[in-house]
Amino acid sequence: MNKGERVKVIFQPSGRRGEVEKGTTIIEASRQIGVDIEALCGGKKACGKCKVRIEEGSYERLGISSSLRHVSPWQMGEEKFINEKERAEGYRLGCCAKVQGDVLVFVPEESRAGKQVVSKAARDIHIDWNPAVKLYSIEIAPPTFEDTTADFERLCEELDDRYGLKNLTIDFHALKDLPDVLRSGEWQVTVSVWMDQEIIRVRPGKNDQHYGMAIDIGTTTVAGYFCNLDTMEVLDTQTLMNPQCKYGEDIMSRITYASMNSSGLQKMSSDIIEGLNTILQGAVDSTHPPKVKIKEQEGQTEEKRFKVSEDEKGYAGLGIEDIEDVTIVCNTAMHHILLQLNPKHVGMAPFPPVIHHSIDVKARDLGIRINRGAYVHILPNEAGFVGADNVGVLITEEPHKSEEVQLIIDIGTNGELVLGNKERLISSSCATGPALEGAQLSCGMRAAPGAIERITIDPESHEVDYKVIGRDAWKRFSKPEEMKTKGICGSGILDLLAELFKAGVVLKSGQFNKEEESNRYRMNSGNNQPEFVIAWKEETSIGKDVVVTQQDIRQIQLAKGAVYAGCKVMMKRLGLEGVDRVKIAGAFGTHVDREKALIMGLFPDCEIERVSSVGNAAGDGARIALLNRDKRKEADWVSRNVEYIELTIEEDFQREFMAAMHLPHMKDRFPHLEGIVPDHILNQT
Amino acid sequence: MNKGERVKVIFQPSGRRGEVEKGTTIIEASRQIGVDIEALCGGKKACGKCKVRIEEGSYERLGISSSLRHVSPWQMGEEKFINEKERAEGYRLGCCAKVQGDVLVFVPEESRAGKQVVSKAARDIHIDWNPAVKLYSIEIAPPTFEDTTADFERLCEELDDRYGLKNLTIDFHALKDLPDVLRSGEWQVTVSVWMDQEIIRVRPGKNDQHYGMAIDIGTTTVAGYFCNLDTMEVLDTQTLMNPQCKYGEDIMSRITYASMNSSGLQKMSSDIIEGLNTILQGAVDSTHPPKVKIKEQEGQTEEKRFKVSEDEKGYAGLGIEDIEDVTIVCNTAMHHILLQLNPKHVGMAPFPPVIHHSIDVKARDLGIRINRGAYVHILPNEAGFVGADNVGVLITEEPHKSEEVQLIIDIGTNGELVLGNKERLISSSCATGPALEGAQLSCGMRAAPGAIERITIDPESHEVDYKVIGRDAWKRFSKPEEMKTKGICGSGILDLLAELFKAGVVLKSGQFNKEEESNRYRMNSGNNQPEFVIAWKEETSIGKDVVVTQQDIRQIQLAKGAVYAGCKVMMKRLGLEGVDRVKIAGAFGTHVDREKALIMGLFPDCEIERVSSVGNAAGDGARIALLNRDKRKEADWVSRNVEYIELTIEEDFQREFMAAMHLPHMKDRFPHLEGIVPDHILNQT
Repeated sequence: MNKGERVKVIFQPSGRRGEVEKGTTIIEASRQIGVDIEALCGGKKACGKCKVRIEEGSYERLGISSSLRHVSPWQMGEEKFINEKERAEGYRLGCCAKVQGDVLVFVPEESRAGKQVVSKAARDIHIDWNPAVKLYSIEIAPPTFEDTTADFERLCEELDDRYGLKNLTIDFHALKDLPDVLRSGEWQVTVSVWMDQEIIRVRPGKNDQHYGMAIDIGTTTVAGYFCNLDTMEVLDTQTLMNPQCKYGEDIMSRITYASMNSSGLQKMSSDIIEGLNTILQGAVDSTHPPKVKIKEQEGQTEEKRFKVSEDEKGYAGLGIEDIEDVTIVCNTAMHHILLQLNPKHVGMAPFPPVIHHSIDVKARDLGIRINRGAYVHILPNEAGFVGADNVGVLITEEPHKSEEVQLIIDIGTNGELVLGNKERLISSSCATGPALEGAQLSCGMRAAPGAIERITIDPESHEVDYKVIGRDAWKRFSKPEEMKTKGICGSGILDLLAELFKAGVVLKSGQFNKEEESNRYRMNSGNNQPEFVIAWKEETSIGKDVVVTQQDIRQIQLAKGAVYAGCKVMMKRLGLEGVDRVKIAGAFGTHVDREKALIMGLFPDCEIERVSSVGNAAGDGARIALLNRDKRKEADWVSRNVEYIELTIEEDFQREFMAAMHLPHMKDRFPHLEGIVPDHILNQT
Repeated sequence: MNKGERVKVIFQPSGRRGEVEKGTTIIEASRQIGVDIEALCGGKKACGKCKVRIEEGSYERLGISSSLRHVSPWQMGEEKFINEKERAEGYRLGCCAKVQGDVLVFVPEESRAGKQVVSKAARDIHIDWNPAVKLYSIEIAPPTFEDTTADFERLCEELDDRYGLKNLTIDFHALKDLPDVLRSGEWQVTVSVWMDQEIIRVRPGKNDQHYGMAIDIGTTTVAGYFCNLDTMEVLDTQTLMNPQCKYGEDIMSRITYASMNSSGLQKMSSDIIEGLNTILQGAVDSTHPPKVKIKEQEGQTEEKRFKVSEDEKGYAGLGIEDIEDVTIVCNTAMHHILLQLNPKHVGMAPFPPVIHHSIDVKARDLGIRINRGAYVHILPNEAGFVGADNVGVLITEEPHKSEEVQLIIDIGTNGELVLGNKERLISSSCATGPALEGAQLSCGMRAAPGAIERITIDPESHEVDYKVIGRDAWKRFSKPEEMKTKGICGSGILDLLAELFKAGVVLKSGQFNKEEESNRYRMNSGNNQPEFVIAWKEETSIGKDVVVTQQDIRQIQLAKGAVYAGCKVMMKRLGLEGVDRVKIAGAFGTHVDREKALIMGLFPDCEIERVSSVGNAAGDGARIALLNRDKRKEADWVSRNVEYIELTIEEDFQREFMAAMHLPHMKDRFPHLEGIVPDHILNQT
């Protein structure tokens, strides 16, 4: 290898970084660093899929020394895929631009290879129909000289007579539409009423079509469930990388960004709102029949939509104005940034939020483009680090109505814990870091094709077998070059640690067992770190071995230790020896192997059949609040009646945390594992 | 006089029109037609006061054949007063531009000579202090690890504990300010709460300064009373010509404009809102100490304000954000145009409004620039032609609480009548036309310096004596050239008719008495109309005689007949022979001679000491609603409990109207006038 000068490259939004040789193409650099950029044509400037944006600006915070676009000059052929405007913004083809100095590269979602496998699909849950916005179709008598009552009062009288709706107000924009709607509908009208209080929309004639979106804004991913407010059906699920990722991967770096940049808060708020507008429009567009190109005479091409009869597809041709309600859950920092509430104090002890209570804001005040009269309902926060997303989990799982003592663990970039039952409920937050999501590990990646999601290690030979997302066959049934492995995603992480421990590769302390002989265990000469090879270079598509380092293992230990210690301290607070039920929420919970999670000591001991995954319960909570207004009240109540425990100031926490870092003495805790795990491992002290 | 070609000129917003010789300057034309344009320098291009805008566009409705700017070319020297942008908009100096064809000339308010004498000053009325927006200053404890309650809930708990305020919400913008305000005020904060429901503003520290404006939007004039919401003091009265005048002088022409022009409604709404912003800013500016120019060294000039200690002038240095509430009264058409509610149906039988009920709209939704969280409260409408302004009169005069039967007459461009007491109250509207305001008469003008406001005519000599606004001495004590008479304003109109009748110049029918000999009575050779000279050319500043024509008299008869007939029909409806009290509201009522109004039969017989003027009761109502929230509820109640009578469909109305056109047979009706009015007049049949 030509030992030339090396330069730093950081890829956003993933935050992955590394050094590559000067002159390397962006595509090549992305492979070396382990970032997925689409490149169908293999670098022939033929597909245009590898479009990236070379950022300009000051990135000292990220450790980049310079602020210029350090890449090779524009090449012939790039203009086929990059227009003038994009070029001015710094767009390049990743196969053409070569790094000439430190650079920050933004990879647009469409250029990311293998869209993330989103585990945020809507679950089938029971919801009682009682949406905040309801439709009423009525016919009213036109005015006469004998009765010159105004349009609005005429409407209200009928709504009272027929539906008992009293003291209604009307949104200013709906009022503007009213006189013409009444007359064009020949005095038959459909009225959208919010919370039995306010008329937010009027339409001529009879209509039963109206829609809403329940949105879960995660630090990394945004998911939106587009629902028919009448039938409660989920018509579409939209997902999006949180566009704020470019300001920092985690909550604290975004709070810092808001504090350090004068318009930082406003910028991050605008970005997420633009993101919400994107998924709202995307959901509306998904209801339209597909566009097709039709050749017209004279070689002219015109885009036309298939004609679909309205009977066939009841919601064909929806407009953005047909979205009449939105509910949002998110963590407290995302909540504050969305609403442009200064998040600084959430990041400073004692971490008070600006508001707990749910908020109803006119969507137009936030710049969210749905029906002009509609509201956005943002669920309440529990505390600075336990937000509306956790409240979403609570109204879905309802531990506050349960006799059983439940432990609910929601692991994302942050870990949120809830413990208790209808007698008493406490919550806390623990800084797990992103390791359990596969981020910021040398071998970690998001859940995408090529990511290892299951793994076993033979205790004798230390041979590794695994399965990657996007391929059904395990490695041992495949040729090496078929695997195209790229890294390990969240659901493989705990597997990995458990297998390394069971195989004796790592000790109870998490240290590599230097006495074990293995051709996969080696010292990396570059960074002088011990590492274990999971997949050899020929099995990967990244041109190098996939390894787990001592530091990676430390990260995983810290994460699982934090969760375990949090659970223990909370149990102690409630005087509990055990819990009746463990629920794991979030994408992590969907994929994790419950048994291995128990082995690794992610949470205190519990019968395995009482451990369950509850999927994206936060998003489910948003959907429940969208479709049942009573659950909004319940959310406000429970958010103030769950006691928040600040773990960092609990005296036992540090001790528990240190203890929980170690891998468990399994024999004591899991007698049923005897025979499964070799004796010398079980008996390790 | 050089008998050249004649062209039509219309001046806006007054609507005054006439023909002048081609080549006449705009200033000269304005004098011939009787429009006041400021011209301090006498046409020497030295003062720039006579700036006018020559309108371009289609004015067929106004009877102008062409749409071009038919004026002479730009002259050297005009650029001293008119910048490039204004020039492009058609601005010219009135002393330079000569008419070359039909033109429409808009006279900006600042160019109008002699600002209107506004009779809309705030009356001294009793109001119980209970404003919609109240201030609460409190101190709260900062968060600790033991109590991490959020800022908002912390605030609410204290507001509940100390003031019993429960279930408060907070405006989105106030919430954004909250975290920083709490900390910069070291946890002492002043909160503005709207209707005990919503926190609309938070400020650091202790503060008792907050303000509001009560606005009366008339078809022609807008008046705003700027009030201290704490002390109820009226700090400033702002007035403005309604900027919508350029779209038509009266309600119907504006409704037509909205119907005929696609963005007409929006334009008129924007114009009035810009007008409201002007008077709101004007009120705030009025609280600032005056600016002075201070010569600095090196010849530099800088504007500085006098320093006024805050003690001396508690409200020095207010900002627009200190206006926390606005109330508005106006007629139904102005109401609808303001809110962009299609006014078309208000103008079409059976004239239903879009809404009766009062409306609270966030000022920001209307584009009204006051505090970001503040509301605008618009009072309720009674009917299509009896609006919130009449409701303002009702909550001021409270006939619905009175034992006595009251007749309340509010004469503006439209006449509104209310009759009844606490048992039953009815209202109606009559189209008086603008004659009683002095508009659209050959001799009429607004109440401004030079306008005749009192008049007597000697029955023997027919000599006319009169008094003009802006000069204390009557004509008979003055030299003719001292009078500088320009026309007759509203308060002189009824005087004029009564005097003409008493002097025998006109008959009971309103016809000139051709048998009376008078050097003032003549036939106008131009239009072949009989006319009576009120002021000879040498007494005027308009270069010609001020006359009253037969047609003028007809206009006045129609107006007073409409009011009288309306009153009679309403009395009949309630089975009344007489009323206990007559109240005359509006600027007209302030100036009218009650006795002459009785003589002329403006309203049915009533003892003169039971006839009173109640000033701008509509504006007073807006002020009452600003300072006492209970009166807002009362307004909503009374607006729906006064019965509206549509006069035009009452079978007696036409007959009563025809009869009321005649001047009264005074001997029968006013026996006390014997000896005052000559016998041959009293006994006229």
